[in-house]
Formats: sequence, structure tokens, C-alpha cells
Amino acid sequence: MSGGAAVTAVAPEGVPVVTTGDDLAAVLTPVLEGATWPDGSRGLAEGDIVVISSKIVSKAEGRLVAGRDEAEREAAIEAETVRVVAERAKPEGGMLRIVENRLGLVMAAAGVDASDVPTGTVLLLPEDPDDSARRIRRGLHARTGVRPGVIISDTAGRPWRRGVTDMAIGAAGVTVLDDRRGQRDQYGHELQTTVIGVADEIAAAAELVKGKLSGRPVAVVRGMSRAVTTDDGDGAASLVRPPEEDMFRRGVSEV
Amino acid sequence: MSGGAAVTAVAPEGVPVVTTGDDLAAVLTPVLEGATWPDGSRGLAEGDIVVISSKIVSKAEGRLVAGRDEAEREAAIEAETVRVVAERAKPEGGMLRIVENRLGLVMAAAGVDASDVPTGTVLLLPEDPDDSARRIRRGLHARTGVRPGVIISDTAGRPWRRGVTDMAIGAAGVTVLDDRRGQRDQYGHELQTTVIGVADEIAAAAELVKGKLSGRPVAVVRGMSRAVTTDDGDGAASLVRPPEEDMFRRGVSEV
Repeated sequence: MSGGAAVTAVAPEGVPVVTTGDDLAAVLTPVLEGATWPDGSRGLAEGDIVVISSKIVSKAEGRLVAGRDEAEREAAIEAETVRVVAERAKPEGGMLRIVENRLGLVMAAAGVDASDVPTGTVLLLPEDPDDSARRIRRGLHARTGVRPGVIISDTAGRPWRRGVTDMAIGAAGVTVLDDRRGQRDQYGHELQTTVIGVADEIAAAAELVKGKLSGRPVAVVRGMSRAVTTDDGDGAASLVRPPEEDMFRRGVSEV
Repeated sequence: MSGGAAVTAVAPEGVPVVTTGDDLAAVLTPVLEGATWPDGSRGLAEGDIVVISSKIVSKAEGRLVAGRDEAEREAAIEAETVRVVAERAKPEGGMLRIVENRLGLVMAAAGVDASDVPTGTVLLLPEDPDDSARRIRRGLHARTGVRPGVIISDTAGRPWRRGVTDMAIGAAGVTVLDDRRGQRDQYGHELQTTVIGVADEIAAAAELVKGKLSGRPVAVVRGMSRAVTTDDGDGAASLVRPPEEDMFRRGVSEV
């Protein structure tokens, strides 16, 4: 009745307001070193995964653009859109569009964020979130001596289900897909459910402690060292299903 | 630099093989009382959420049906299907179908499970997973004196993204949707992202410790007492997007 597995996510307080040009690894190092664990210990350890909300990555990378009125906001969304996946008229006028953005992510508003940004602006997703994750990982390693996995997370809706959840849009040093093909169950049958989207599950676990308005845009997940790799690996781009595997590719229009 | 939030998921070992007629609350009580936490404590506490893989719930409820050959397996899937959402030919012959089942869940094979079940059978999802969750919750309360939240989880693929993740298909005493509409950011704007699918995120966090072949089909999530309610609440059925809200309702056929 003892033993078993444990995973803990903590979201340390004290992340300052992030602005263009900030070195996120430098900003986050003292915050992460102050993270308090349920066993009373502190700080970052090998095998930990640092999950960072894309919003502060985008802010550090200066991804704010003009969004003073509906036309400017729409233009920002259109510039990020490569395909309209679904759309319908909004009761208040205009169209609600679910689109694929240039990162291959299917999201409302192409991932362009109008909340918790300065008035008159909107925030684009990082240019290359996997590259952002790799850079932050290098910076954290240089400053702390620990080489954690890094995930950059963002929030999106899902078809058929209410509520938004967090997913991994950038990753470095994390096995984003846990491939269990070939494993057999106790009856000797090969497993049906075969590849786990583990980076998305880690991002979801991290959201439980981060929260949107809590001033805690960063979490550390401990207990998933099996998913942390020395190499930076393929990144979260490999979570995007390529068109030839996509059974739901019946978009309204290609743009 | 101290304080902050923490959520821990543990998956205790020692869950025996579950068969038809088992009282899951009775089976799980000693296992949950032996759960070991990172701070060295043991057992279940108020505010905990018990996440149970649907597979053992189905087995306890006797949801095994004949699946001796492809025709019998297909018949089981068809009986659970209310709508074909997407389909394509499999390289090895036959059709791969993503369907909506009678619970409103969109899944491959309608949630009919052919792995880790006795040869010649397949396993249907629980008849009413929210009711299963309520019953298990009552049983755990009666046996342990603690009234945890209960989530019944299952694994499914997602459009556009590789890899499967766990979601909540049954719930009792858990706020499945965390509604933050009306909250304002530091600039005074109302939050854009408004309703969090928190029960799905808890199910995802639990999957990280449970795993398919680990013999750990149950996890306990601690630190989410804000989502645990005295009343059993609406259950996971309220996570299913009704047709009138569904922007992706362009099914191949209604059956």
C-alpha cells in the first residue's frame, strides 16, 4: 500500500512585471530559487520542468502590436492566420473565427491576446516558442547549474468540450510525446492507446497552480524527470498534427 | 519569493484486479489510506480529489461485452455511437472512425476499449459516469469520514494535435468548469479567457502519475480544494458542449 508515483506543481510568487527586452532566465532565476515544495525544500532540481505562460515570453520578446480599435485588432489576427477552421456570427456583430495560426495551432483569434496587455495594444505569440524555450533553458542552466526541462504554455478551447485548457506551444529538454507503442497489457495484447501528449498534460497540471490573474505566470513541475532529456529535442512543434494525419481538415477557407 | 500555490498528484500502488460486482469504494479505501505524500503524510484529507480511470469503474460495473472478432467489436462500437464525426480508410483495411457516443464524448471507437481486457471481450464506458462518481464518493465518505471530490477519467485524442490526453468523463463534488467571467486584469479589462476546464486539467495531471500499464489506475490530487464542493454538483456531463454551441458540428453522418 506504499510507494507509487508523485508529481507536484508549484507556482512561486514574486514574478515581476515583464517588459520588452527582459532576459526571462535572469528574471525568473531568483523566483524559481525561492519556490517552496511541500516537503519544505526550496528551489530548482535536476528533473524539474519549468512551465512558463506564453504571455510573459511574448512580452519579453516585444511581441506587442497596435490594437487601438477593432480594425487594428482584426488586422493583427489576420496577419497571424493561415487558415480559417470554423466561424460563426457573434450575437454582438462580427464573426467568431477559430483559425490555424502560423505555428500550426488552432485557436480563437489566432492566439492574439487582448487581455492583461496595455490599453491600445494586443500581444502576439512568441515568434518561435520552441526557440524561446531553448534560450530560456540555456539561461536557467547558466545561472542555476540545473538544466530543467522548459515548457511554454498557452490556453485554448477545444472542439466538443466546454472550457479552455492549457497546452504546450514551446518545449526544450522535454519528451513532448510519450510513445508506448509495442507495450503489452497483462493479457498480452498490444496497447491500443499508444502515444501520450505528455507535454500538454504537464502544461494542464501547471495551469492548476498558475492561474490567469494570480500574478503567478510560472510553475515548476517535479516528479516528471522521466520526460526530461539532456538534448533539447524536437520541441512542441512536433505536437502539431501534420495535414496528412488530420481527420478534421475541412477548413472553411484557406487564406 | 516564498508562498505560492502547490498541487500534488500521487498514485498509490496496491489496487487489486477489479471484477464485476466489486464495490470500488471498498476496494479503493485501503489503497487511498496508504497513499504517501511528499511531506511524509499518508491517506486522504478533506479537499482531495480522487481520480479513477474509467476502465476499473467499467469493470466493477460489469461493462464487458463480447468482442471475439472484428464483427463483434464493430457491433459494440456501433451500439455506443450516435454520430460519426470523422472517418477515413485504415491502411490495413476497414475504417477509422471518430464518433460521438451516447455520453456526448467524441472519441475513436466510441470509447469502447479493447486493451487490458480479457481475450474475446471489449469494455464499454460506464453507463452513467457522473452517477458512478457520486456512488463512489458516497462510499468513500462512509468508509473514510472524508468527502473527497471524485473524477472518472478517460483517454482520448484531440483534433489537430498529436498524442492522447486524459479528460474527466464523470465527476462528483468537483467544480468541473471554473468560471472567471467578469474578473478584470491589472489594466481594468475584462478577462478574455473566461471558463477553465479545470476537471479536464485535473484528469490530465492525474494521468501523469497513473499511467496505462503501471497498475496504478487511481490518483489523488491535493491542493485543489477550491474546486471541491459539498454538493455533488453538475458532474462532467456539463463539460460536453451542446450542439447549439458546437462550431465543429459538421459530422459525416447522423446514425
